[in-house]
Amino acid sequence: MAVSTSIPKGTRDFSPDEMLRRNFIFNTIKESFNLFGYLPIETPAMENLSTLMGKYGEEGDRLIFKILNSGDFFKNIDTDKIADTNIQKIAFGICEKALKYDLTVPFARYVVQHRNEINFPFKRYQIQPVWRADRPQKGRYREFYQCDADVIGTNSLLCEAELLQLIDNVFAKLGINVEIHINNRKILAGIAEYIGNSELITCITVAIDKIDKIGLDKVVEELIANGLSQSAVDKLIPVITLKGTTTGKINELKNILNDSETALKGIKEIENVLDYTKMCEVESPVIFDLTLARGLNYYTGAIIEVKAKDVQIGSICGGGRYDDLTGIFGLPGVSGVGISFGADRIYDVMNELALFGGLKSVNKHIMFVNFGGEEEKYSLKIINVLRKNGISCELYPDNSKIKKQMTYASTAQFPYVAMTGSEEMEGNIVSLKDMNSGEQISMSIGELISKLK
Amino acid sequence: MAVSTSIPKGTRDFSPDEMLRRNFIFNTIKESFNLFGYLPIETPAMENLSTLMGKYGEEGDRLIFKILNSGDFFKNIDTDKIADTNIQKIAFGICEKALKYDLTVPFARYVVQHRNEINFPFKRYQIQPVWRADRPQKGRYREFYQCDADVIGTNSLLCEAELLQLIDNVFAKLGINVEIHINNRKILAGIAEYIGNSELITCITVAIDKIDKIGLDKVVEELIANGLSQSAVDKLIPVITLKGTTTGKINELKNILNDSETALKGIKEIENVLDYTKMCEVESPVIFDLTLARGLNYYTGAIIEVKAKDVQIGSICGGGRYDDLTGIFGLPGVSGVGISFGADRIYDVMNELALFGGLKSVNKHIMFVNFGGEEEKYSLKIINVLRKNGISCELYPDNSKIKKQMTYASTAQFPYVAMTGSEEMEGNIVSLKDMNSGEQISMSIGELISKLK
Repeated sequence: MAVSTSIPKGTRDFSPDEMLRRNFIFNTIKESFNLFGYLPIETPAMENLSTLMGKYGEEGDRLIFKILNSGDFFKNIDTDKIADTNIQKIAFGICEKALKYDLTVPFARYVVQHRNEINFPFKRYQIQPVWRADRPQKGRYREFYQCDADVIGTNSLLCEAELLQLIDNVFAKLGINVEIHINNRKILAGIAEYIGNSELITCITVAIDKIDKIGLDKVVEELIANGLSQSAVDKLIPVITLKGTTTGKINELKNILNDSETALKGIKEIENVLDYTKMCEVESPVIFDLTLARGLNYYTGAIIEVKAKDVQIGSICGGGRYDDLTGIFGLPGVSGVGISFGADRIYDVMNELALFGGLKSVNKHIMFVNFGGEEEKYSLKIINVLRKNGISCELYPDNSKIKKQMTYASTAQFPYVAMTGSEEMEGNIVSLKDMNSGEQISMSIGELISKLK
Repeated sequence: MAVSTSIPKGTRDFSPDEMLRRNFIFNTIKESFNLFGYLPIETPAMENLSTLMGKYGEEGDRLIFKILNSGDFFKNIDTDKIADTNIQKIAFGICEKALKYDLTVPFARYVVQHRNEINFPFKRYQIQPVWRADRPQKGRYREFYQCDADVIGTNSLLCEAELLQLIDNVFAKLGINVEIHINNRKILAGIAEYIGNSELITCITVAIDKIDKIGLDKVVEELIANGLSQSAVDKLIPVITLKGTTTGKINELKNILNDSETALKGIKEIENVLDYTKMCEVESPVIFDLTLARGLNYYTGAIIEVKAKDVQIGSICGGGRYDDLTGIFGLPGVSGVGISFGADRIYDVMNELALFGGLKSVNKHIMFVNFGGEEEKYSLKIINVLRKNGISCELYPDNSKIKKQMTYASTAQFPYVAMTGSEEMEGNIVSLKDMNSGEQISMSIGELISKLK
């Protein structure tokens, strides 16, 4: 009879302690978003499947969770021919809706749908879960939160710098030392031109993106397998592994990529962003990283990734500029730039670095022992007054043995327990036990309020 | 090429203005939950389909959104026989997961799964979206938020009263006049006994539940159609439509239902809850309503429903006691009681009563006009200082025409706009324009901070 109590793999329950820590992260990020003038929106968990398909590459399409149509889901399908029909085609026939895969594509859809109500340039933030049918592993879940900030409707490079400042602000408040890596898609496109393989720009960025994970040798193998000649690879590697200061690298690139207008435009953008970044007093190191590519197809300018310095966990925040994300929804020529904080990885980093230490539960404040009868009534009277004064409190619900009630209070980490027996009732007082020191003092209701407020 | 920008029917986008109002509701409810000692948890959007099926009646089962298995979803299905197979059976074969339908069943699953970590009695709250494939209509959505508070692991009737006090607290803060209706499932069961149709208790409660919506005559029709005899109906109607004071009704019921032990137990419970409710100084009217039935099968004691007095919209909060919800997951004998606030209907009520009037966006604070060049640099310097002081501010991202920038600022409802032209730069000052009065004053950076902080 008993049904299993497991949950789908890659998903999680969050206990009160975990919620406290997660909310600390969400609230910190939200506070910074507000400080920088971003406004909140939310979009549904479900989007039309057609809105999402084709936006994340073939791999992404496979990872989208599809929702079965209600009622007779086979009504548009010739069931006699099912055995011979392509399974993806059937999926499209029986599912019209899907769970959102990220916040960026739904945001682009939102902007187009609401363009007449939006005051451009539009600075929005969005903190919501997304779903991916990825293989679950450490730090990778099938349901996880993204915390996104984007500016859309301007191509000012000031926005890139402001986002770096925002990153700086968030991680300083969380206590995580980070370094910010930036690159520019136009430079990567210029490099593809330079090695004579413009048409392979997607393969090249996808491969370069993996240098950190699989190493340079395997990346070279992948590039060759994808159709790059040995001579193209020989030209590529020295460029993307250029060493030296940012100014040094920029000057060398200007020489090497001198024939590519696109590359020179990208280099100019990087220079401007770095200038603005100085004016914005970004304190975390900002590293011009030519191996930073980021897989997503829609980036066209700056690309940004943030790494924790003291923990090996990959990127904990990333983003970039996209010049035409809304084009696919019928609104071309709107440039945007945004970043996304990975709350789940940030949580793991903070746990590993023991950065949650000072965090105390605020809502367990004071428990009244339940003595039943008239004493119970007397406790309720005091509790009403405390709650009216905004003091969180509760009466143990049953007149159980004192020992049981005290064990509950101590496990729940109440800092105070109040006793209101017959003696206290007669004196119109309360005996307050400090659960840390063990000390017990009697006081009037007025004194109790002053003490706890 | 352009993809449609519509969203699935029954779902919604929320703009920054709507978010502000919705967050006001969520924060108010959360504040009360904390005040009363409830702790937050969260469960995944997706549960295993087997966890949800059979918990909400046949109608509920149909309304659960199912998620298509990833990869080859037909692998456990004999595709040659699909045309002849029951469609529900196929759905089970191709979907293992589903979107949660409410917060109560996932909470029961959570309690069983985490029973060894939980400190009972466990007071938890949960504010999350749920999904139902219902026909969308005014006030009814396919994705909507529930805000639940439950106490589990005690059968103390103090909990019922505390939840009524919590309801009172929330709606007082929101400014909504409500009346709280309560009844008890044991009394309804006793009435079913009394009319000689104990076996039809579910039909009877489902039918009674509709009196408000479809009227007494149609309910009688439904009861007859479901197998009640005319004489049973003739016994039933006078009981559930008893008039008079609560005490009067209770005394009459004690006489009428004298032979039903269950009914007498339910009456005793109602009396105790009402006593506690007085001690808890609940100010909203609490009405003993014999026609209140609530459809959900799992209630076994108190049932609660809250109605807004000044708006016709149905129930805006409801709940009840369930004695064995965790039994199905293998943990019998754990009693719980809970309530659920319907944030979306509360939103509609507050809109209709114009209760959001005083709500001001807090995060649009001050915009700096962008004059480009050195002036831009000067503005950034001041902005850095303001942000370090926790003052929300932004620089318009482009050096556009002043008129365009001012239109943006006024549409975005910035209360202040700062001008930092060459004159201000020389004097190391800022000209601040109050967007409401139109007044413009020059001041030092220090004065600006004091003014805005």
